[in-house]
Amino acid sequence: MMNYIPTSQIHIPEGMIDLGVGDPDFALLPLDMLHRAAEACFAKADPAFLQYGAEQGDGYFRMALAGFLSRGYGFSVDPGTLFVTNGISNALDLICAHFTRPGDTIFVEEPTYFLALRIFADHDLRIVPVQTDENGLVIEALKEKLAEVHPKFLYTVPTFQNPGGYTLSQDRRDKLAQLSQEHDFMIAADEVYHFLNYSDRQVKSFAAYADLETVISLGSFSKILAPALRLGWLQAHPEAIKRLVTSGLLDSGGGLNPFTSAIVRELLEAGDLEKNIARLIAAYRSRLAAMETALRRELPQAEFVTPEGGFFFWVRLPGVDAEQTQQKALEYQVGFRPGVRFSSHTGMGDFIRLCFTFYDEENIDEGIRRLRKCLEFSL
Amino acid sequence: MMNYIPTSQIHIPEGMIDLGVGDPDFALLPLDMLHRAAEACFAKADPAFLQYGAEQGDGYFRMALAGFLSRGYGFSVDPGTLFVTNGISNALDLICAHFTRPGDTIFVEEPTYFLALRIFADHDLRIVPVQTDENGLVIEALKEKLAEVHPKFLYTVPTFQNPGGYTLSQDRRDKLAQLSQEHDFMIAADEVYHFLNYSDRQVKSFAAYADLETVISLGSFSKILAPALRLGWLQAHPEAIKRLVTSGLLDSGGGLNPFTSAIVRELLEAGDLEKNIARLIAAYRSRLAAMETALRRELPQAEFVTPEGGFFFWVRLPGVDAEQTQQKALEYQVGFRPGVRFSSHTGMGDFIRLCFTFYDEENIDEGIRRLRKCLEFSL
Repeated sequence: MMNYIPTSQIHIPEGMIDLGVGDPDFALLPLDMLHRAAEACFAKADPAFLQYGAEQGDGYFRMALAGFLSRGYGFSVDPGTLFVTNGISNALDLICAHFTRPGDTIFVEEPTYFLALRIFADHDLRIVPVQTDENGLVIEALKEKLAEVHPKFLYTVPTFQNPGGYTLSQDRRDKLAQLSQEHDFMIAADEVYHFLNYSDRQVKSFAAYADLETVISLGSFSKILAPALRLGWLQAHPEAIKRLVTSGLLDSGGGLNPFTSAIVRELLEAGDLEKNIARLIAAYRSRLAAMETALRRELPQAEFVTPEGGFFFWVRLPGVDAEQTQQKALEYQVGFRPGVRFSSHTGMGDFIRLCFTFYDEENIDEGIRRLRKCLEFSL
Repeated sequence: MMNYIPTSQIHIPEGMIDLGVGDPDFALLPLDMLHRAAEACFAKADPAFLQYGAEQGDGYFRMALAGFLSRGYGFSVDPGTLFVTNGISNALDLICAHFTRPGDTIFVEEPTYFLALRIFADHDLRIVPVQTDENGLVIEALKEKLAEVHPKFLYTVPTFQNPGGYTLSQDRRDKLAQLSQEHDFMIAADEVYHFLNYSDRQVKSFAAYADLETVISLGSFSKILAPALRLGWLQAHPEAIKRLVTSGLLDSGGGLNPFTSAIVRELLEAGDLEKNIARLIAAYRSRLAAMETALRRELPQAEFVTPEGGFFFWVRLPGVDAEQTQQKALEYQVGFRPGVRFSSHTGMGDFIRLCFTFYDEENIDEGIRRLRKCLEFSL
């Protein structure tokens, strides 16, 4: 029998402030909103949402989602270009399964989301890192790599990047889309943080390029609603959608998440997702400010660019071996993610990733104080 | 924009009785029961079930599931041996991804579930069919194949087989488990129909062998609750569980279905799943009898063994080319699945699969009448 009964994926020792955890705060998960949506869904008394679902995803859900995306992006999204997924990890897994073969080369940003690297490794892909700077992927560096090797796809987190926090500039977006056409590689744009924008600056989603056969925009409800839903979408050219939809898995099991998407459809149609995002932005903006203040006060040697959205500060601690320090940090009851985990070639050794969404302002402040104490002798 | 708005996976032309559809009846989907379970789940006001879930699946859900399985199987199931999936299609996809490489050989029953063949083809597996008879997989035929080639796994639907309807005898189960040990291949036992037993004869689940490292028992809520939940489980040796749990996909996205499993946990703890299964057995038993009566009356030339559970009659129509007849059947507004679709080498040409769970007795009777009219000149 089980001695310990796991529920969520998060296991933080009592008393610890783990700024390495990259998840939403439990207290900000929209329990009441989802409760109302579930009620509205069951109140229709139509059992159709309990049957095997349409392979591409429920049509009414995709219409409601297209409405939300059209309002958010400022341009029209066709529900026929949307495919319902179990979230971005699942979408990446499907893209690897359908568009690559073991041994194929793909490009990733350096640094990049470390768990995406795990998914690519599971598919035995050869991973080539491409340099980034404070404006995201460096196009010249990409061109150099493209002259050497042809990738099946490029994986990018273009907006409020994980872990870097930076956003790909508009000019680079256009160039990247154009290069994908010229060199015939796909762009898998992980836009999980797109709607968590704490600045006044608008950013154009890669959905704007999704009429190109080379661009797939990946979205998720994990960060703007609740991770447990395992609900996301991708937007792509009809040819790419067709390849994803005609699989044995979907033929056999039907759409990937018909029950949950029927509930979230109600929430979308009620206009609640916009309200939830506004609530999250208000909370996260304040937490971001708390972390910035604490970092500048406690760790003046730290180098970082304040993010304008998303979940993370990407902090360079000159002279610090972050992975070694992690063990010591346990004694100070504070956690972070060492930068090396986000590198595809064991670089980024003096970087750490700090998440500002999981804890409230008080805990963030205390966490950074503990980090200073832990680092006092290293810095 | 979409002209047609798809919700469920089922598209049957108006007026048609499609006995080829292998799905539960919409009218038998337990809307009220799931509504109560969702209410109970939200009433706890604990947001933990909305967070990233434990990779192996929520511990409390696995405890409730282990309780149900222990009562149903008549032996104790350890929740630590259960892994929560998105259903059996998803589980088969994961097994292929984790335990095979493109080009590997696997064994399947002849005939077998046609959409599983699609999943295996997507993983570029070499499929070798093994003969079956009215007691399931023929062990001597398996031994002959094993002498020729080593399979990574054998895929079997041991109980109320799809499409054959037959059940592997106890003696053959023991022999099969023993052979998997001797020849070191895995058994992926798809037990989706296990609990839909309309006879008085007990059948032992492959879960009874799951302490062996070579046996994986696959279960699902699709046929005993609702397909749209995309919720299932597998029971296996801890070593196999470990391989499935430590993947990039699960590390990144957490458990496969935490939200839905938290709702179904309530239903399990209330003892409602047993009630739902009893209700389904009563309904399906009557529909099975209606189809048998109609078949014997309308198609005396048809050869079949009356199934004791599951969803299907597997009917031989001597001298009929079932695939050719399918087109003609459209004129008579009746559908079936031609046997050739269940063959991995285009055999089974004079067989058809008829499902008795999707329609009520009246429609089943009318469907078989139409089939007789359609076949009148062929038989």
